[in-house]
Amino acid sequence: MEIQIAAAKINKYAVSESGDTLEVVERPNGGVSVVLADGQSSGRGAKAVSMMVVRKVIGLLAEGVRDGAAARAASDALYTEKGGKVSSTLNIASLDMHTKSIVLTRNNPAPVLIAHDDEVKPLEGESKPIGTQRTLRPLIDEMPITTGLTIAFFTDGLVYAGDRRGKPMDAQSLLSELLKDKTMTAQSIADSLLASAIDLDEGRPTDDCSVVVLKVVSLAGDSVRRMNVRLPINLG
Amino acid sequence: MEIQIAAAKINKYAVSESGDTLEVVERPNGGVSVVLADGQSSGRGAKAVSMMVVRKVIGLLAEGVRDGAAARAASDALYTEKGGKVSSTLNIASLDMHTKSIVLTRNNPAPVLIAHDDEVKPLEGESKPIGTQRTLRPLIDEMPITTGLTIAFFTDGLVYAGDRRGKPMDAQSLLSELLKDKTMTAQSIADSLLASAIDLDEGRPTDDCSVVVLKVVSLAGDSVRRMNVRLPINLG
Repeated sequence: MEIQIAAAKINKYAVSESGDTLEVVERPNGGVSVVLADGQSSGRGAKAVSMMVVRKVIGLLAEGVRDGAAARAASDALYTEKGGKVSSTLNIASLDMHTKSIVLTRNNPAPVLIAHDDEVKPLEGESKPIGTQRTLRPLIDEMPITTGLTIAFFTDGLVYAGDRRGKPMDAQSLLSELLKDKTMTAQSIADSLLASAIDLDEGRPTDDCSVVVLKVVSLAGDSVRRMNVRLPINLG
Repeated sequence: MEIQIAAAKINKYAVSESGDTLEVVERPNGGVSVVLADGQSSGRGAKAVSMMVVRKVIGLLAEGVRDGAAARAASDALYTEKGGKVSSTLNIASLDMHTKSIVLTRNNPAPVLIAHDDEVKPLEGESKPIGTQRTLRPLIDEMPITTGLTIAFFTDGLVYAGDRRGKPMDAQSLLSELLKDKTMTAQSIADSLLASAIDLDEGRPTDDCSVVVLKVVSLAGDSVRRMNVRLPINLG
């Protein structure tokens, strides 16, 4: 099998720094984790918050701490640091090679979409951002790694895309439509979801927007691990 | 401009865990860092060493510590933890958006290749792995981010590919050849370098082998940041 993990990310229009932070890290016992946080508001302050949350989580995951405990620790740390006044969303998706499962941990009201082939459903349960309450628990779902499984999650920039213009995003239908084409890679799905959000915002995203897609496919290629980052920069 | 960062990685033949660890992380003041370590020997022990080194470095970079200081700290930590008995190579490549430069920090005898268009040269100076001496310093090179710049570095699995069969790898010539094709992406270059090493080892890599390629191109596409990971797995 091959696991494809793809992210696509754009900043709020005319803001140079994204408030979203996303990292993909190796787990000590094999597998990888994707960690995505969206700090409250936008720009530099939001970035500092989401970076702090992601750092906390990946530091703990690296020590072998389980995802749920890492999310709680990040919540407590943010609460303590900011006196309960600043919130952040948090999503963790982990490939656990011991249990041969994917573990999805979230403190984010935005849906997490799970697809088996092109049948898409959001995970159940109401999930709240971390940072404003001491007693917050993440929602945790676990599912076996199986061919045909696709998972998509995102920050609220995607959820509210088009909202102001009265044409809200329907990520679930769009994902189902995209998955009818079996050749779509995780990257092309993430790109399409983000492009659709940008379109709905008429090319000027009203918020930072990050999309993560995981896809499990039967292995077509070699046994090489690959990672690829494309970073548009403006040195002006 | 667009910065492309690509990695391709394969394990030593018949060994399930790579001794190389590679992470790409965001820097607190913008930009990203790529950190690559190759722990002494192979398998689980080597992995623990290279993970510890990479974790130490990315933790410090996240706090705003400069690359050279982070490399020295990782060296001291490894020396202390293993009593000077275990070595690891370390490469850090950072896009520093403040200085608009690429900073290359290394404790690795393997060459770092720098290309302007298709003219390839190795960085000068002799560099030693960390962990076996207290007084080690990394070699540090800095260069402006300019279109046409390509940087390649790797672990010794690539350097010694084909060695036993008397057909050693010539990464410098190969990279120059690859760069004659202006359409090559960082990923296709990394893939080609690794494929060539695997070929020289007749399909059975004699060591873990990781290749990292950075390429600066004039921006052809949109302003979306993308990250893509492909992870072949065997659940058997």
